[in-house]
Amino acid sequence: MGQNPLNLLRAAIKVRKLDAILISQPENRRYLSGYTATDHSIAESSGVLLVSVHDMPLLLTDSRYALQAEAEAFGFEVMLYDRGMLALLKKVLKKRGVCRLGFESHYFLHATALKLARVAEKVGTELVPLTGLVEKFRQGKDVDELEKIRASVRLNEEVFQEVYASLRVGMTERQVALAIETTMRKKGASAPSFETIVAAGPNGALPHAVPSDRPLQTGEPIIIDMGTVLNGYCSDMTRTVVLGEPDLKTRDLIRVVRRAQLAATAKIRAGITGREADRAAREIIKQAGYGKNFGHGLGHGVGLAVHEAPSLSSRNRKKLRAGMVVTIEPGIYLPGWGGIRLENMAVVTTDGCEILNADHTFLDI
Amino acid sequence: MGQNPLNLLRAAIKVRKLDAILISQPENRRYLSGYTATDHSIAESSGVLLVSVHDMPLLLTDSRYALQAEAEAFGFEVMLYDRGMLALLKKVLKKRGVCRLGFESHYFLHATALKLARVAEKVGTELVPLTGLVEKFRQGKDVDELEKIRASVRLNEEVFQEVYASLRVGMTERQVALAIETTMRKKGASAPSFETIVAAGPNGALPHAVPSDRPLQTGEPIIIDMGTVLNGYCSDMTRTVVLGEPDLKTRDLIRVVRRAQLAATAKIRAGITGREADRAAREIIKQAGYGKNFGHGLGHGVGLAVHEAPSLSSRNRKKLRAGMVVTIEPGIYLPGWGGIRLENMAVVTTDGCEILNADHTFLDI
Repeated sequence: MGQNPLNLLRAAIKVRKLDAILISQPENRRYLSGYTATDHSIAESSGVLLVSVHDMPLLLTDSRYALQAEAEAFGFEVMLYDRGMLALLKKVLKKRGVCRLGFESHYFLHATALKLARVAEKVGTELVPLTGLVEKFRQGKDVDELEKIRASVRLNEEVFQEVYASLRVGMTERQVALAIETTMRKKGASAPSFETIVAAGPNGALPHAVPSDRPLQTGEPIIIDMGTVLNGYCSDMTRTVVLGEPDLKTRDLIRVVRRAQLAATAKIRAGITGREADRAAREIIKQAGYGKNFGHGLGHGVGLAVHEAPSLSSRNRKKLRAGMVVTIEPGIYLPGWGGIRLENMAVVTTDGCEILNADHTFLDI
Repeated sequence: MGQNPLNLLRAAIKVRKLDAILISQPENRRYLSGYTATDHSIAESSGVLLVSVHDMPLLLTDSRYALQAEAEAFGFEVMLYDRGMLALLKKVLKKRGVCRLGFESHYFLHATALKLARVAEKVGTELVPLTGLVEKFRQGKDVDELEKIRASVRLNEEVFQEVYASLRVGMTERQVALAIETTMRKKGASAPSFETIVAAGPNGALPHAVPSDRPLQTGEPIIIDMGTVLNGYCSDMTRTVVLGEPDLKTRDLIRVVRRAQLAATAKIRAGITGREADRAAREIIKQAGYGKNFGHGLGHGVGLAVHEAPSLSSRNRKKLRAGMVVTIEPGIYLPGWGGIRLENMAVVTTDGCEILNADHTFLDI
């Protein structure tokens, strides 16, 4: 079997001595089938896949998604439910004689799992909770995925540069965030990949600040953290900019964070661990005396989801592999004063990493 | 004890012979505590509540949300975790001697529940899965909530009317949706309450159509389904409009749908069931020969969530109560041709219902 995702999944089914796996996680569903529907929420699924080793894989959904499912899920048989997914699944499990069924424990509500367990018991199916199986396949990007990620990064940078050029003292954080998200959509993004962060002055001390009605002021650091979704693939970039002249402290801190970013960039290659990548940046920030002010990990994987494996943090002792796409985003956060964060995306290669960003706005000051 | 939500929950804790309930669902968390943080996803919680009958209620969160939690969750003790929620919860359960702990099975990942079960076992706590408990309290809106919903409806209508006045043949569905969402945010909405639907001509045949790049054409029905979030509370409204003169068929269908809406509006009052409300509208559409072309329920509750209980559908045999806020949104969908949907929001009263919408655009043609 080749390395296409469905074949990887089939191999995993064999290894785990399962008869089939139920896929409910939306990005995994898309990755395996090409079906692009998203879930309004985890409680409002737009369908599940049932994959086994030999039978034709199935996409179970409801009539609202019938046309889209047929058009997109190439190689899948589309089956429609009208009285809920579980009623149809029960029939299918029985007909196919599924004795051991894996399901995505990390994207399955406990309440739904209780119902699934009742259904499974009736047809003699044993349930096997799985976590992160397809997510593991998704970590290594193929050529087509890398192209889509590059396009998403380019679009994101275009939007940033257009809005950056229009920034003025007195605009509020919310106005800037709105301009960013509007420009994204005008330029063809399907959506922001997460809620845009614009955090100026003291607000920047919160890594996950929500844009406020506070007007931008001269000289203060302004963190802009933004990403687009284009053709399903995400981008994620942070710049810290200043209107007017940055003072000495701001300038120094930006330089520390940039040096940390460059140190991690120089370190990252296939074979080092996520922990080692994180440490490379963290050491620089520690040496500058701000070790306690860098409270989050160095980065995370990006692909169909804006936050996915692998994480670049002290908790990840696994080795990076070529083809993984990660963010490199060190920061320094000083309560009451503000924050600095710089974030690029990179693809891991056998002998290093390639930065996907071309934008250098305020990086090297 | 009065009827405030926390006291209702405490009464439920007693009735179920529990020692405490863990609240993870974001709207429930906000409803009970005033803490307005949302979850980026169900896997990235911004905190949980632990409520028991006598002890001070707790809000467990991490340092990113510390300031917000302290400022908003009045009457709650804020406790911060740095090595995950479950590690802190374990200590608290032990210290408080919680023997039976209820948790929200409908907003708890199966994988997280497995971990919670291991933690609970270690400290001798029995887990009791609950579903929809706080959602039941949320169905009846108090005066303050109704005020907020009214404001959200007003804002939504202002946005609709402004964008409606700017509609021109040749604009694409996506452009219109973008104009709507941009105008919402300019006017102070925190967000759209769901992804705006603009579905013209044949696209209107899909109740959950996604805006496309197809330009609007003269004479075709254009479904615009939109809602805002303002101060946490949602609105939801649908109009079907026509640029230029509607043809006879469009005009007829709009009239059928409007008559169905008015029939349901006349029927709805405290004491009738969701099923009866649905039937009142469905009968009109059936009589006109389009019974099979109204494939969804008549409506749903609206509040902190844009889709919440009660549902107005053939499946809901429970009685409506005064203070519930529901949508009334019949529709007719003809594959290949398009669709008509009209949606208002109403608050149920003891002797009828009060329509919250003032907008009459294209309703009575």
